[in-house]
Parts: sequence; structure tokens; C-alpha cells
Amino acid sequence: MSKTKVLLVGSGGVGTIGAYSLEYAGKSEVTVVVRSDYDIVKEKGYEIDSCDYGIIKSFKPTNLVNSIEAAKEFGPFEFIVITTKNLPDVFKIEELIQPVVTKDSAIILIQNGIEIGAPILEAYPENIVLSGVQMIGSSNRNGKILHTIKDSVKIGYFENKNLPLDVQKAACEKFVELYKTDKNHCEYDEDVKFTRWRKLVYNATFNPLCALTDTDSGRMELFGGVDTVIRDGMKEVLKVAKSDGVDLPEDIMEFMIRSDDGVYYAPSMQVDYQKGNYMELEVICGNALRIAQKNKIDTPVLSLIYNLLRVLQMKIKEAKGAIVVPKERPIPSPSMI
Amino acid sequence: MSKTKVLLVGSGGVGTIGAYSLEYAGKSEVTVVVRSDYDIVKEKGYEIDSCDYGIIKSFKPTNLVNSIEAAKEFGPFEFIVITTKNLPDVFKIEELIQPVVTKDSAIILIQNGIEIGAPILEAYPENIVLSGVQMIGSSNRNGKILHTIKDSVKIGYFENKNLPLDVQKAACEKFVELYKTDKNHCEYDEDVKFTRWRKLVYNATFNPLCALTDTDSGRMELFGGVDTVIRDGMKEVLKVAKSDGVDLPEDIMEFMIRSDDGVYYAPSMQVDYQKGNYMELEVICGNALRIAQKNKIDTPVLSLIYNLLRVLQMKIKEAKGAIVVPKERPIPSPSMI
Repeated sequence: MSKTKVLLVGSGGVGTIGAYSLEYAGKSEVTVVVRSDYDIVKEKGYEIDSCDYGIIKSFKPTNLVNSIEAAKEFGPFEFIVITTKNLPDVFKIEELIQPVVTKDSAIILIQNGIEIGAPILEAYPENIVLSGVQMIGSSNRNGKILHTIKDSVKIGYFENKNLPLDVQKAACEKFVELYKTDKNHCEYDEDVKFTRWRKLVYNATFNPLCALTDTDSGRMELFGGVDTVIRDGMKEVLKVAKSDGVDLPEDIMEFMIRSDDGVYYAPSMQVDYQKGNYMELEVICGNALRIAQKNKIDTPVLSLIYNLLRVLQMKIKEAKGAIVVPKERPIPSPSMI
Repeated sequence: MSKTKVLLVGSGGVGTIGAYSLEYAGKSEVTVVVRSDYDIVKEKGYEIDSCDYGIIKSFKPTNLVNSIEAAKEFGPFEFIVITTKNLPDVFKIEELIQPVVTKDSAIILIQNGIEIGAPILEAYPENIVLSGVQMIGSSNRNGKILHTIKDSVKIGYFENKNLPLDVQKAACEKFVELYKTDKNHCEYDEDVKFTRWRKLVYNATFNPLCALTDTDSGRMELFGGVDTVIRDGMKEVLKVAKSDGVDLPEDIMEFMIRSDDGVYYAPSMQVDYQKGNYMELEVICGNALRIAQKNKIDTPVLSLIYNLLRVLQMKIKEAKGAIVVPKERPIPSPSMI
């Protein structure tokens, strides 16, 4: 049986474990796009310390490239797996992958957020777009991967109304077969939209509020933020999910609040903010709010959180030189507003 | 005419200019309580660079002491002027000044916030308590005072129902006479409660939100925070003020938003947060909210701001060692909540 050609874009801590899993399962020929660590990984491979796979001194995927353009020679790809951060206010995934998408590519977003399939389906209305919701803890420091929380992925599809459902489901099942190993957990999820909203109960509240206050989830609770703000935000997430056709059980809130018990956990957005990295604000908070607005759901807490996080994101953009703040503070004219 | 004995507590950038003004006016014998800079000021005096008074190489008030207790030998004081930060969640002013309050002392709070007279009147129901609302920019670095924004103070009284109003008004007018110079601005304010609420329109919005996002007022506007959050917060301040009997004009909001025009201004709470100092959260945000609750005014924006700022204040307390966070994250039991 010939191997399936899989392209993986976004080889940080999470993506590298994904690439390793695909290679380990043995059914894929994996091409990985690596940006900043390309030279070091090309030479030495990834050094992996994984709770699932143990110590791997040097992991080199079958093909390693430093750009999407360079990946083309190893295509066409049956699966294009996206494990980058999803930052539509910084770059568009649909534009990034344009050179490698063919009519037979299934695009898989293993990423945070809600409603993230929409722009991909709009750009590629004839393609299958899969939705991967992952639980994992893994970080990358200059090609050294520290994988601490076991990999568990649920795979479903963002429904493409131009394609038969059974074809979309079959793509999910095929990808599960490619990804699943004896060490990780990967399964088809027939209600992955539920799973995405479920994860958002944590991600749309703890993530931005821990970033905003630069406080881990444990202190957030000890210092009163869980009782005074997080719970109210979670209630709003449940209301918005319901307006989007997803009925989350009430007790999911308490489950999420207790999910970091025992540790002072810094959610990804807090870590991003501390490091001066962009935060996945738009796909986690912004998209939920846009659904709320469309469905006329009142979200005072989530709206305020989003608006303040946007200020932080702009600060990060300024620090990265992506925007320039005038030396002299401008007095806004109607045309500026 | 013998001089009036005045005690000044809180000799930072603002208090030192106050002490200097009282001495400069020549009608007071000023005793100043200095804590951290006592040794250096005792030896060298304050070095002042003032937009009102010019360069003063060495200013020593008539009496300099390092504690309230030590001040007693220079009393009794007709006026006790408080220019410390007002931090009821850290220390109580009414307890701090207890050793020097006599039945004839008028206590003057030249401090931010709303409803700050109440605990003083409760502790000293027979005393006059005055309300000073000040506009000034002045900072202190190890006894070096840099005074950059002209001193302007309005003096009224927190009404003490146990005393005749004309006596309370006379105390205001006497203090204005003591404080007023040809360089500063100081006047009796017959509606100082209005003036306090007016100042709070800025202080209860820009101050906490600039602290929370660590963003100056100029960037707050450029990055969208003024249009999305500050204005809504200001509207709530106006509603709460109205419920407290103070009818602020709508256009005060635009006036406050434009008040820092031309500069990227870091409000005091942001500066405090950056320096790891306590923020005047309770008197600015907390008291406004308590009035809102009492009067059943809905304040979703101000409530959320307050609850998040409390998390920051707790972080500061932890950093200062005022609270200890358990090494292992505790799982809350009902008794902890």
C-alpha cells in the first residue's frame, strides 16, 4: 500500500508531535513546513521528550521544507494539516496554503477557536475541510520539543454543503487511521461542533482573562476572578453556543473551572502575552462574539473582554513593528474614527 | 498673629508641594510626617523643581517627624491634612491618624475617590472633615520633587450632621486662606461632591483600564479601547453619580476623553501597577460600585473592571508579601469560598 501524502504546516510544539505521530503510525509520507527552526532541524532534527513517545534524540520528518512554495515538489497532498496558531488578524490561512491546495486536498484545522472553517470553505468551496479539536501540552524551544500532556484529538468536518456528507465523514475516518497510534488518542467525532464549543467554555474565559491580568488560573480563583468574572463569561458562552445550535450542559462550567486543579496553570494566551506573541483572540473571542451579534445574544462580559484584549493585541503589533504609533499623539478627526 | 498648627501626612510628590505651599503662604506652622525619605530629608531637605515655585534647593518644613506618634509633640493640630494614597484595603486612615486627632482638629482629605469622608466621619463624629479635590502633577524620587502640572485645589466639606454647616464652611475658608498663594490655585467649593464625581468620570475609567491593559490613554484611544469600553464605563459613572444626587453634564465625558490630548499619558493607577505599588482601587472603583449597588444601578462595565483590578491588587499584595499563596494550589472547599 502506498503511503498517503500529508503536508503539515506549523511545526511548533504541537505540530511536531503531530508530524511524529503521523510518521510513527507509518501510513503517511509527511512533509513538514518549518519556518524559524529550519536550519537547526535540517541539520540535527527535532529533539523530543514526549510523555507519549519517550525520548527521541533526532526526529526528521520524511520531507522538510522552509516554505509552502517549496513543499509543492512533494505534493500533491491528500491532507493538508494546519497546526499553526490561527491569527486571521495577522495572516490568513486560506492565503498561506493557496499554493498547495488541489481539488483533492482535504484541509484539516487542528486549531483553537470557533467558526474557523468558514473562511477556508469560502476560499475552497469544493474541498473537504476537517475540524480537529486537540488536547495536548507541548512546547518547542529551538527545535527541542517538550511534550507533557498526552495527545488526544477528535476529528470531524466543517460541513461543506457542496459535497456529500459520507465523503466528508470518510475523510475524517481516513485521517484518524493515519494519525492514530498505540500511544495517542484520535477518534472521529460526529459532533465536533459540540466539542469545539465545549472547549471554548474554558478558552473564551480563562485564556483572555489570565492574559489580561497576567494571572494563572489558580491565582485567578484564589483572587476572586473565577467567582466574579469567569463564571459569568462562561454562562455567556453557553448562551451563544445554544444560539448556534449547541446545547452544552450547565455542569461543563464547573468541570472546566476544576480542570486545572492542583496546578497554577498559565493558559496559552497568557503565555503568548508574556512572550509578546500574538494571541488567538479573533478565533476564540471574536468569532464567538460575532455569532452572538448575529443571533442577538447579549454578551456584556465577553464583549468587554474582547475589546480589552484587542488593546493588548495592538500593543503586541506595535512591539513587533506591525503597526506604528505616531510620535505625537494625534487628535482624532472624524475621518480617523 | 500666631501661626496655625497644621499636620501633613503623606509627603510624596503631591504632599510636599502642599507642605511647601502652606509654608510659603506663611500662615501655618507645618509638621510633616515622612516615612521612607525621612533620613535624607532630615539631612538635606527636599530638592524641588516646581512649575509653580521654581527651583528650591533645600526645603525643610518647620517640623519633620517620622511617625504620627512623633508628631504629637508639635500639636495639637487645627488641621490634619492627608495626602497619602487612600488604600482602605491596605491601611485605614482613621486608625493611622488616631493619635493626633483632638476634638478641635479638622481633618482634610486631599485624595482621590468618592465617599471617602464616610469612614472618617464615622470614626470622628464630632470633627470637621474636609474634602480636597486636587489637580496637580508631581512626583517624588528619594526626596527629589518634580512638579510639572500646576497645583489647583478645591476645598469643601463632607457634611457632618452633628455640626452646624456654617462652622464646616468656615473651616474650609480658613484652610483656603492657609493654603492659597500667589502661585497656586485654591478655592472654597460649595459643591465639592459634584467636583469629586466629575473627576471620577476620568479616574474610574481611564485609571483602571490603563492599568489593566498597561496602556497609556493615547494608545487606549488609538487601539479602540476608548470607543469600545471607556465611553460605556463613563456613562455608568454618570448614572451612578445621578443616583447619588449629582447631575453631571453629558459632555463631561468628551471633555475627559480629550483632557490628555497631545500626550501619551499614563494615569496614576497604571504607573502604580507598573511599579508594583498598591492602586487606589477601592476608593475610586469600589466605592462607586457600592453606591451603585445601594441605589440599584446596573454597572456591568464598572463591575467587571473592578473585579479584574482586584485580581491585580491581589497580585501586588502577593508580591509585597502581604498575602501568601499556598505552594500547592488548594482545591476550594465550600468553607473557603
